[in-house]
Formats: sequence, structure tokens, C-alpha cells
Amino acid sequence: MSEFELIRRYFCSEILQPERRDVCLGIGDDCALISVPEGKQLVVSVDTSVAGVHFPEDADPYDIGWRALAVSLSDLAAMGAKPAWFTLALTLPEGKGEWLESFSQGISDLARRFGIALVGGDTTRGALSVTVQVQGYVSPGAAWKRSGAKPGDLIYVSGPLGEAAGGLEVVLNPELDLPEYQSLKQAYLRPEPRFDLLSSLSGRVRAAIDISDGFLADLNHVLKASGVGAVLDPGRIPISSSLKSLFGEDRAFEMAISGGDDYQLCFMISPKRRLELEVCADQCHLQLYPVGVITSTPGIEGLNHFNSAGFDHFGRNN
Amino acid sequence: MSEFELIRRYFCSEILQPERRDVCLGIGDDCALISVPEGKQLVVSVDTSVAGVHFPEDADPYDIGWRALAVSLSDLAAMGAKPAWFTLALTLPEGKGEWLESFSQGISDLARRFGIALVGGDTTRGALSVTVQVQGYVSPGAAWKRSGAKPGDLIYVSGPLGEAAGGLEVVLNPELDLPEYQSLKQAYLRPEPRFDLLSSLSGRVRAAIDISDGFLADLNHVLKASGVGAVLDPGRIPISSSLKSLFGEDRAFEMAISGGDDYQLCFMISPKRRLELEVCADQCHLQLYPVGVITSTPGIEGLNHFNSAGFDHFGRNN
Repeated sequence: MSEFELIRRYFCSEILQPERRDVCLGIGDDCALISVPEGKQLVVSVDTSVAGVHFPEDADPYDIGWRALAVSLSDLAAMGAKPAWFTLALTLPEGKGEWLESFSQGISDLARRFGIALVGGDTTRGALSVTVQVQGYVSPGAAWKRSGAKPGDLIYVSGPLGEAAGGLEVVLNPELDLPEYQSLKQAYLRPEPRFDLLSSLSGRVRAAIDISDGFLADLNHVLKASGVGAVLDPGRIPISSSLKSLFGEDRAFEMAISGGDDYQLCFMISPKRRLELEVCADQCHLQLYPVGVITSTPGIEGLNHFNSAGFDHFGRNN
Repeated sequence: MSEFELIRRYFCSEILQPERRDVCLGIGDDCALISVPEGKQLVVSVDTSVAGVHFPEDADPYDIGWRALAVSLSDLAAMGAKPAWFTLALTLPEGKGEWLESFSQGISDLARRFGIALVGGDTTRGALSVTVQVQGYVSPGAAWKRSGAKPGDLIYVSGPLGEAAGGLEVVLNPELDLPEYQSLKQAYLRPEPRFDLLSSLSGRVRAAIDISDGFLADLNHVLKASGVGAVLDPGRIPISSSLKSLFGEDRAFEMAISGGDDYQLCFMISPKRRLELEVCADQCHLQLYPVGVITSTPGIEGLNHFNSAGFDHFGRNN
């Protein structure tokens, strides 16, 4: 089977092209044609994952596919958008059927979960890298921007931090690959874009970002965009017992505030909305973690008594 | 200046982000926000250009930028769409200021010509490659698909063919880099997406494709999608005198029918529309070349007396 046929086989499947009313013409022509639903804004993000930089060269192709799509989808989740469709630009050294089958399965399994369609793509020869552009919809004015945080707002994160940084260590050090650390490994290899938060947070979020660079670095993006500062309560930063048991309290804390790739959301809400948010999250069995407060003084306070390694990394991210 | 600053400097410029009513939020947040104009369909295409495959590793970064955007825009032109905005995913080994400045200039110069905005991007470390996703608009039902050709339709091409294939030879062989062959070189390095045809062709085209793989290969994509065949008149295939003088009649002809990267359009119109099309094209000082007719018999006829090299390449493209 030629590479062209392989690609058609794995990427033009019905699974990757579910029927969607907005997709008028999918893969196979010069372009795709989309009818954006009336009264919706289009939300767009693009991310490239490079072998040896964003994932190990010899990673399971299923995970490479899953992760490349997840990382890009996470940006939509961070804007409060509903995912709709995506394009895939895959550069690979050679088109092996087995590799492509597993890679496309990873992409399909995640795409199917949200009913999103692959509408276009390009496959080229070269060093392995994957570029995914995702599109979703949001009602006008409803997108969660980075610039909306106000002094007094509560800062939340959507789950334990540092999991992916810990997971990467497990991936790179096979002697750590024990049953009790599989949740860390999964957090790194198969991150879950947090669309499950959408209904609870909708209409309540003032600013949001997904944690890809690391909690402090990403929080800082929000603070700068909003022209505000923050006071954190380090004791409230959620850290899993697995991470602490594997790396010890100090290193686990450093990973939680500086490690990237968690793809949890960090968001701000007005304190007036706290009760309704927490009731709503409870009803949806979601656990949310308040970790600090927005202030009018630029910078981040509250971490002074923690080790300098964290601060150093923080400094470098800015 | 850090790489982050370099990228901000060259890609967040006002030139690359002109004010557009449809772009509600550009670069700088998790996602861009777009309000697609009411009553328009969105037209989407993505293309990756890899160093050493789609352009020489040491090519002028200005040309790399220009070409990467042009190649992607050409797909919009082939659908009869008006270009609107794009995203850029750039993977590069190291972020040198000079390289980035020239690269972004190439992109800006082409983008500015059509008033299109860069709304999002990602810059990653790795082997040099550029992925551009372009979006444009079209009225519902007005897109030129590959599947609309009917027996009796006339087949046109929008300009001389084989120019880029000849230009690549000039680029690869510095002894050919003479003043009289600069037009060939330009055709390869700085292709022009044919949006200038839009108003003349609008409402008249039954099917279209841009010539990226080579004329016969791309014509065949249309024939297959439309379930038809074609008879060509080889004497009418436009070939420049530069191409003929550099490579001789036979090789020039082979390049014209099989060479890729021309980014001219190949389109089909009903014979009833011929006169109005040609009058309209004349008024716009556009030269169009009728090269054959669509038939109901699958396959391409009319090339029998030409050398086998052309056929061989043709065979390999199918």
C-alpha cells in the first residue's frame, strides 16, 4: 500500500469525519468548507509538537497522536469554547502502516469523545512533528480572555499540578515505571482537555488560561494581560500524594508551581460567584481548588518561604 | 533579545495584524476570536513546507516565508475564496534575529497585499519547517469544487506551466542563474496565488484546482472527483520561451505537464460561458489558456505522440 493510500485509509475514516452540520465539505478538495453557526464566534488555536522536544522520539504513536490533539484542544477549553473541528499537518520520516494506524487511533479516540471532525490536513516527509489547529465556537462576548482578572478575584486551578512533570520523569526513567506512578505517566502522555468544566464555569469566569508552561509562568501571563498581581496560598496548591511520595514534598512543590504540560485550567472568578460556582461544581462532581487572590500590586506574593529553585525557574519563565 | 522577544517583535507587528472587522482577538491569548461575516462560508486549508523537501535548506528566509504562505493561499484561490486570516506554526533550529526578520518580511509582504491578518501561531525548536493554515470566505454554494466538471466543459489554465520546475533547476544549478532565467527562478521562489482571477471567474467556474503536484496529476484529481475524462490539445499548453530556450522543446513540454509548484489554476467552464469569460478576462488584462475539453470517457487523451518520460511521470502520479 502506498503512503498516499495509507494516509487516506487512516485519516479519511468515518470516525475522524463524523457528520457535522457545520462541515459542508471535508477532506479531499483544495479546501474544506465550513458554515459557522449563526451567532457564534469562531475560536482558533494552533500548536506544534516536535519529536525529541515535546515528546520522546520513540513514544507510542497512539500517545503522540492523542497528546498533539489534546494540547491544542486545551487552548479551546481555556477560552470556554466548545470544540468543533480541526486540521492536522503531519511531518514524518517514513509512512509505516503500523505507526500511522496507532497514531490515527490516538487522535480518533480523543476526537470522537468531543464529536469533532478532521476537515483538512497535509502529510509531508521530514523530522517527526505534528501541527494541530483546532476550532471551536463561543457566544460573542463569552470567551474567557487572559485580560479580565480584577483585584479581589479568586484564583482557582482545576486539578493537582506537577503531575505531567512527574510523569515525564517516569517516562524517562523506566525504573520509576511502577503501578503506583501510572497516574503521573498518564497525566503526561494523555492529558485531558478540561471541557468537563465548561458548563460549571460558563458565565462565571473572568479570566482563564491553561497550564502548559507551568503554573507560575501561566498565571503570570494572566496577571500581565490583566495588569494585576496575585497573592498565593502555597498550602492550597493541589499536589497528589503520588507526586509527593515519588519526589518528596519540596521537589513535588517545585514541580507543581513550575512544571509544564499539566493542561489543567487556572481561572479567576469574582468572590461573589464563589458559592454558586462551588455548588455547581459539586453537582457535577468536579473538584476545584482556590489557591489565591488577585491584587492590584503587580507580581506574585506568598511564596517567599519556598526554596529558591522554584523562584529561579519562575524568573526564567519571565 | 530573547527568542520570545524576537518572535513577538517580528510576528506581532501591525503589518501582520492589520485591523479587520472579523478579527475580534488576535495573537496573545490562548486562542484567537473571529466573527465570520454573516452569510459567508469559511474556507480552510493547511500546508507544511519542509526544509530540504519543499525548499532548499539554505534558501533566502524571505523566500521561505513568502512561499510557505503563497502555497497555502493558492488553495483558497483554487476554491474561488477571498483570503481573510491565517495562522503560522514555525519550527526552527535556532531563532536568529536576522533570519526571523527576513522570514517575517517575506510573509508580511505577501499578507499585506491581500489585507490578511496573522491571528495565531506557535514557534517550536526542531528541524526547519513552516505550517500555514489559511482561511477565507465564500458565498454559500459559490466555492469551486473539484467535483463539478461536466462533459463538454472547456479546460483552462491561467498561465505558462513548468515555470517553477525550470526555476528549481536554476536555483539548484548556479551556472544557470542568468538574467534571462530570472522569471523562472521567481516562479519557483515567489509564486503568486491567483486571486487576480477571482472577479473574472466568479460565477463561471464549474470546477477548479491549483497546479501544485503538476498539471496532469492535478487535472486528474479533478477528473476523478468529477467522474469524467479529458482530451487535451498539447499545442495549446502554454510554455514560456525562457523555458524552451533553456531546456529545449521536449524537456520544456515534459516540465509543463508534469512539473509541480506552478500554482497556476486549472479550471473548467461550460462552453456557453466562453465568450463572456474571455471578454471579462480581456478587460482585466488577464490571459487565459484553453487547453482541452472534458469528456465522459475516463482518462486523459491527446498526448499520445509525446515522449514517454511525460507519460511515465504521469503514471507515477496516479
